[in-house]
Amino acid sequence: MREALVAAAFQLFLERGYEQTTVDDIVALAGVGRRSFFRYFPSKEDVVFPDHERCLADMTAFLAASDKEHEPVRRACDAARLVLGMYAENPSFSVQRYRLTKQVPGLRAYELSVVWRYERALAEYLRGRFTGRPDGTLRADVIAAAVVAAHNNALRSWLRSDGLGDAGAAVDHALGYVQKTFGRAAEPARAPVFISPAPEGYPDDVVVLVSRRDAPLWRVVQELETALGRA
Amino acid sequence: MREALVAAAFQLFLERGYEQTTVDDIVALAGVGRRSFFRYFPSKEDVVFPDHERCLADMTAFLAASDKEHEPVRRACDAARLVLGMYAENPSFSVQRYRLTKQVPGLRAYELSVVWRYERALAEYLRGRFTGRPDGTLRADVIAAAVVAAHNNALRSWLRSDGLGDAGAAVDHALGYVQKTFGRAAEPARAPVFISPAPEGYPDDVVVLVSRRDAPLWRVVQELETALGRA
Repeated sequence: MREALVAAAFQLFLERGYEQTTVDDIVALAGVGRRSFFRYFPSKEDVVFPDHERCLADMTAFLAASDKEHEPVRRACDAARLVLGMYAENPSFSVQRYRLTKQVPGLRAYELSVVWRYERALAEYLRGRFTGRPDGTLRADVIAAAVVAAHNNALRSWLRSDGLGDAGAAVDHALGYVQKTFGRAAEPARAPVFISPAPEGYPDDVVVLVSRRDAPLWRVVQELETALGRA
Repeated sequence: MREALVAAAFQLFLERGYEQTTVDDIVALAGVGRRSFFRYFPSKEDVVFPDHERCLADMTAFLAASDKEHEPVRRACDAARLVLGMYAENPSFSVQRYRLTKQVPGLRAYELSVVWRYERALAEYLRGRFTGRPDGTLRADVIAAAVVAAHNNALRSWLRSDGLGDAGAAVDHALGYVQKTFGRAAEPARAPVFISPAPEGYPDDVVVLVSRRDAPLWRVVQELETALGRA
């Protein structure tokens, strides 16, 4: 019944436009009563995004099931992948909805509020993990926003390409940038001297060495010689 | 007249609530006609955020007036400071509006759409600056989201504290985190060997040295000795 209502709604949205379609039109086509519609969907907007509530619940449960062993930035990225999974489950429906959402300001506003709820779920998780760290809430909010922006950059490219190509690989690449940018903050220097991955934007032919100020110079030079391949 | 309408509207919103106040109530209190209201404000929501359109226009103009000499991440942060300026101009009005917005879902949705427009303005500017760079649009979108999240983290703390404290210093600190995180990406290693600021999350007692693989080892050691203060 729920699927029939979604299918009827989209058929009418595409035929006559979103604004011109009423809930009465949708239930007439689906052959059910108005009360059935409102049992599944609080409003006409909700039928356009039928799976976000489930996906938000899945994300919240996934984050709640985290433990201290999970690197927090990586965990937030994995949570964002649940959203991609929902879109990738049904590419043609996702592409249709993307086109519809671009045309109807009310649906764009609805989508922004959904995105905001995902972002808050990620930020709440990260705030919990960063409790007691300097600037914990700031880092949590910025990283949550970065995860959402990277995910949506890849998702929208995929939707604009009509759902062709590998959405998973594109999102992995985008989230990889976020992990590379922020993940290091989660693992401060433990060894007195170590070679770090080059930050984003640096050429590939550089070596980045991190040393405690009190490390013996011979240890630093040794590490460096090994890294430069000139031992 | 515009200010009188805003003042009348807020007086009524606070007295009887936002939903219970009509445009007719507002114009009656302000002593003007309905048409005057709609000359200034397309809808009742707009009277709650009377300065965002001007601020968006200021931001767009500020970004359009950028040149190649401006470090792009810093420039985006400076653009975000224009929004803070608007809030800080009138703290008590901003705090009242913050409380009202938290209570009324329709206003929260409106605010999300305004925030989205700021974020898009910043992202468009950064996309232009990063044209031709690998992952240019991804970086632009992520950095724009990070700037907005950092700005709003500091702004909301200030609003929650009833507009006490130094909003400018709080926002500078938050944007400083974003600049430190992403700013480096904009200046890849030019010298064959140099000492880089320690990334976020690293202890203060570390030295970070960046070296091209083909730099002579004596140059690297020399740089390191200087940095460690043991020349």
